[in-house]
Order: sequence, then C-alpha cells, then structure tokens
Amino acid sequence: MKVSVGVSNRHVHLTNDDYKILFGDKEFTKRNDLNQPGTFASELTVTIKGPKKEISNVRVLGPNRDYTQVEVSKTDSFTLGIDPPVRNSGDLDGASEITIIGELGEITRKAAIIASRHIHVDKKIRDELGLVGINTVSVKIPGEKGGIIENVYLKDSAEAYFELHLDTDDANAHLLKQGDEVEII
Amino acid sequence: MKVSVGVSNRHVHLTNDDYKILFGDKEFTKRNDLNQPGTFASELTVTIKGPKKEISNVRVLGPNRDYTQVEVSKTDSFTLGIDPPVRNSGDLDGASEITIIGELGEITRKAAIIASRHIHVDKKIRDELGLVGINTVSVKIPGEKGGIIENVYLKDSAEAYFELHLDTDDANAHLLKQGDEVEII
Repeated sequence: MKVSVGVSNRHVHLTNDDYKILFGDKEFTKRNDLNQPGTFASELTVTIKGPKKEISNVRVLGPNRDYTQVEVSKTDSFTLGIDPPVRNSGDLDGASEITIIGELGEITRKAAIIASRHIHVDKKIRDELGLVGINTVSVKIPGEKGGIIENVYLKDSAEAYFELHLDTDDANAHLLKQGDEVEII
Repeated sequence: MKVSVGVSNRHVHLTNDDYKILFGDKEFTKRNDLNQPGTFASELTVTIKGPKKEISNVRVLGPNRDYTQVEVSKTDSFTLGIDPPVRNSGDLDGASEITIIGELGEITRKAAIIASRHIHVDKKIRDELGLVGINTVSVKIPGEKGGIIENVYLKDSAEAYFELHLDTDDANAHLLKQGDEVEII
C-alpha cells in the first residue's frame, strides 16, 4: 500500500519547564500546522550546541511534551560532534548530551537522538489498512537512488495522519521530498 | 558476497588545463593514497560555489583527468542551491553549473553531479566473483537503519580495489562508515 513521505529536518521538543528557561513567558506562537493533528511548527528557533560545533535556526515544535528531545540526522551529529542513538520519539535511553540555547537562557540535557524511521497510524488506519498487530514494516523507494528501507516503526496516536517520517539523511540519500509516495511492503 | 564500503565526501577532479588556472605551476602533492590503485587525495582544496552558498575545503583528487567534475551529495546540493543529476563518473550530461575557486583563479563549469552508487571492479574480480556481464547489483545493508540499495553500478577499470563507493548521504542514512562490510545480492 502507498504512503506519503514527510521529511523531518532537525527539530526540538521542549517540556513546559525547559520552555520557560529558554523563552520565559513568551507566547508559543504557531507558524504553521504540521500534518499530525494538533501539532505545529512554532515561530521559535533555538541553537543546538555539541562539543564540536553548533547549529542555529533549529525549529521548536509544539505543543510542549513531557520530555525535552532534540532530533538530528547522522550528518548533523558529525557537525555537532555527538554520537546519538537511533530511538523512537520519547525513548531517550542513551541519548546524547546537548546544549539548547534560547532567547533567555540555555539548558544542557541528555536529549539528542536520531529518530527511527516511522509511520504515523491510529486504530482506524490500522483497521482499514490491515496493519493490526504489526510493529515494523519495510518500505520500497522508487527512483535512481531507490531501494528498500527496513525497520520502519508504526507509531500509534489517538488520531494520526497516515505518513512516513524520514530524516533529511534518509530523504536525501533516496532523493525523496515531502509528499512523495512510496510503497509499504 | 561481501564488499567493503568506501565513503566519498564531496570532492573535485580537474583537467590539467583547469588545474593550471586554479593552482598555476604548484606541485600536485599527494596527501594520501586512495584504495583505487594510482589514485590519491592531494594536499589541495578548493571552494565550490553555487547560486545559494559556497562550501570550502573541498578536496582535489588526483591524478588529473580529461574532464573536470565536482561530486556532491544531495544535502550539499541544497546548501549550494543547485540540482545536479545522478551520474556515473565521467558522464556530465546535464551536470549543474558550479564555480570552483582555487588559490590563483576560479572557473565555472557544468561539472556538478551526484555520483551513482558504484562498486569498483576489474576483469579479474569479475571472473573470480562471477560478476561477468553484470551492469548493476543491489546491496543489503545491515543495522538499525538498514535495508537494500538498488542501482549500484559495477565500474570497470584496468586494476581495481573491490569496494562499494557511497556518498555521505547514503552512508549517513544507513549509519555506514568507511570499511564496513555489506552484502551484494
């Protein structure tokens, strides 16, 4: 079955407490909605800093969560000088220490991961598409730099937009862009 | 069968004439040998410049060739603001225009490509490994971000070191590093 691609550039999720340290009482203004219901890219950016270099203009996504998490690509990790593990969102076991610099302050957290390839699903989507009881799938990518990507995790939420999320390394390696269609196998 | 991975960062090949424009009579000094017999990374670097940004410290490889070619990743192409095609080395059909800045001068050439995934072979390797008459293969990548990459071109030379060359996008997307072993299927 077909699924459309969403490309995730490096980004940050914050707890309410960490948001306060970085931005104080500043309003968490939406720039644009993301495809997953209720989520948005905010107007705010931070700088993320590792032992080697820093990367600026990293988007803060909303709403805030109960964990602070920095999602980077392997390419970013070489720039920063960190070696983050591949993890599902919210699993910060072994996450790399990173400094997040906001307008009013900075925090250092064990928060940096490379996000697992994942497809957003909910109960309705699983029922309709015959994906009940399945944890991971493989996806066939067409094109000159195509192939098959494995270990693509089905990520459940109460209400999902059916979409494959890839980081910029996976997207660029396979010449994929936002909205391209690929095939779950 | 197994093959080891060589990761190719962005780099430049020059003609003798273009070398002269960029470096004059400067000696083309070897920094280190590369695995392919007779090839080397030189001590020299250039800056490559597209309509958007430039990238400095891009290694010049030797010896010089009968074409000038700039090999970049898709990620680099976004930085530079160009849209290069995927091509086998030496095939500059539709290559993107790019400016190459050396110590003494600069040149602008239709020379930028994304190199096809390729495996270096020669007649002896083809005979020994049963690869006679085969143009492309697929390669199985193990690991958390593994899968299968397709359209891997077998590149012939008179004397080759048997190695799979991937750009940094492919390597980073699959968490591969120089010397890793993968499987031709």
